[in-house]
Amino acid sequence: MNLLKNKINAEGVVLSETVLKVDSFLNHQVDPELMLEIGKEFAHRFKDQGITKVLTIESSGIAPGVMAALHMNVPLVFARKKKSLTLSEGVLTSKVYSFTKQEENTISISKTYIKENDRVLLIDDFLANGQAALGLIDLVKQAGAEVAGIGIVIEKSFQNGGKLVRETGYRVESLAEIQSLENGKVRFKQEKVHA
Amino acid sequence: MNLLKNKINAEGVVLSETVLKVDSFLNHQVDPELMLEIGKEFAHRFKDQGITKVLTIESSGIAPGVMAALHMNVPLVFARKKKSLTLSEGVLTSKVYSFTKQEENTISISKTYIKENDRVLLIDDFLANGQAALGLIDLVKQAGAEVAGIGIVIEKSFQNGGKLVRETGYRVESLAEIQSLENGKVRFKQEKVHA
Repeated sequence: MNLLKNKINAEGVVLSETVLKVDSFLNHQVDPELMLEIGKEFAHRFKDQGITKVLTIESSGIAPGVMAALHMNVPLVFARKKKSLTLSEGVLTSKVYSFTKQEENTISISKTYIKENDRVLLIDDFLANGQAALGLIDLVKQAGAEVAGIGIVIEKSFQNGGKLVRETGYRVESLAEIQSLENGKVRFKQEKVHA
Repeated sequence: MNLLKNKINAEGVVLSETVLKVDSFLNHQVDPELMLEIGKEFAHRFKDQGITKVLTIESSGIAPGVMAALHMNVPLVFARKKKSLTLSEGVLTSKVYSFTKQEENTISISKTYIKENDRVLLIDDFLANGQAALGLIDLVKQAGAEVAGIGIVIEKSFQNGGKLVRETGYRVESLAEIQSLENGKVRFKQEKVHA
């Protein structure tokens, strides 16, 4: 997605060989028009998948997630993320380890909003180690629903999450795939051609 | 805003005389089309205010906030909320006490994204005790920027936040004002007439 790649080139800050800061348009400040276009692109790529819900994780997944849901005309559900969680009835939980923050979080959703007949599109801002995406897949499976695909805004292809998540067999669509952040420079993988 | 009030009547769950659960369209599952209309309504009500940024707090403020920002053609910034925060350079913080959760959080924004010449519209999902809104006002003041108004999705008018926040002199626009939740029933205040 060229609009996104241009934005990353213009505003992304390479903090290290593994860390790209995109606080100016995705993770802290948010560019609503770009989010709208990202949502449209996800809707386009998954248009034949019979999606009935979009599921993401707070907080940075919400803006792209709500725009994807808007274009698909389905509800968004955002999983809550807590260091500890009092288990309550009707709540599905999964543990997600963050390598960046070196802490384990429990992500959770209410059973009420993901049902057996749902076909769920998972959306997240980043795919790096894949733990968040695997946690979301786990929640959807616990609900007895179907994962219809996984949409990622930025994939760090040099980390192993993409491989781990694709090994589950689900279709992963990343709008910008970063090959490397070496020497302070963002290098993208060549984009797949989409009809 | 009748669309919102109808949704509250249809799907809101009164848990006690002070707690209204709107998890089906605002706080956990999100209705994107309703958020779009809410954003449009905020943009309409504050259209002459020269807004340059929308500021909200993660997580439930993000969906209505990004839609308001979209309609106003300005960026959204969402404040981070942490129980504790390592102070770092270039970060503005404010302490916010949550009566619901009985805990103090530190909300924070980067100085980079709210500047002296900004006119900032604050958006939040609920106005109850007013602590979150007062925290956001404090952040904008620390940044040397101007609060141009405060847009609230649901105000619980029987709690004292509305009074506290209006005493600051800023214009507050609440799209649904709830007079009481007594006897398990939502009673709205009469709506103001808007041109």
